[in-house]
Amino acid sequence: MTQDCIFCKIVAGEIPAKLVYQDEQVTVFHDIDPRAPVHVLIIPNRHIASLTAVGDEDAAAVGRLLTVAGQVAQLTGVAETGYRVTVNVGRDGGQAVYHLHAHLLGGRRLSWPPG
Amino acid sequence: MTQDCIFCKIVAGEIPAKLVYQDEQVTVFHDIDPRAPVHVLIIPNRHIASLTAVGDEDAAAVGRLLTVAGQVAQLTGVAETGYRVTVNVGRDGGQAVYHLHAHLLGGRRLSWPPG
Repeated sequence: MTQDCIFCKIVAGEIPAKLVYQDEQVTVFHDIDPRAPVHVLIIPNRHIASLTAVGDEDAAAVGRLLTVAGQVAQLTGVAETGYRVTVNVGRDGGQAVYHLHAHLLGGRRLSWPPG
Repeated sequence: MTQDCIFCKIVAGEIPAKLVYQDEQVTVFHDIDPRAPVHVLIIPNRHIASLTAVGDEDAAAVGRLLTVAGQVAQLTGVAETGYRVTVNVGRDGGQAVYHLHAHLLGGRRLSWPPG
């Protein structure tokens, strides 16, 4: 856990969040500023600043962000209608919190390009 | 390889593409309809229809789509300025080709929401 990281505190249960799913590797919760009927964040429990900071020891946890997405889509009811998974990195990507996270949005038609 | 899948044919070298990177698990090439100065696709070499169709045997290859993104960002010159990685699934996600792929966009500020 990294001090003062809001997402680390959500993983630890020190800050409340609307949890969707949690296991030993990832935590999934609703975005506080939802931009679609379904908008959740999938984060690794271990603090990793961004996709650029991923080391070999993080590969499994980072890979899980994507492989758990199908399961999260089932839990949130968008598996059949479709969804988009987005990871923002750095300034141009619009990364707001420097604890790696994947956004999963669904429940409406997502337009193109993705930002 | 799945017959008539355009991405399988790119992996096999049967259809030309502007390749950025290729190894035993993934192939990376420029999108033919770029929506940012840098816009590449990262795909698993093995045919997987979508994130929803991911089985346990695919977990490593799917995870690689994300873990290789940082490396692809370096190769395309957007690692420092930032980028966005997006996976479209199904109708609402706007999935156009049913061979799983991650879009990596950079070289301009990406807006929010991501579609």
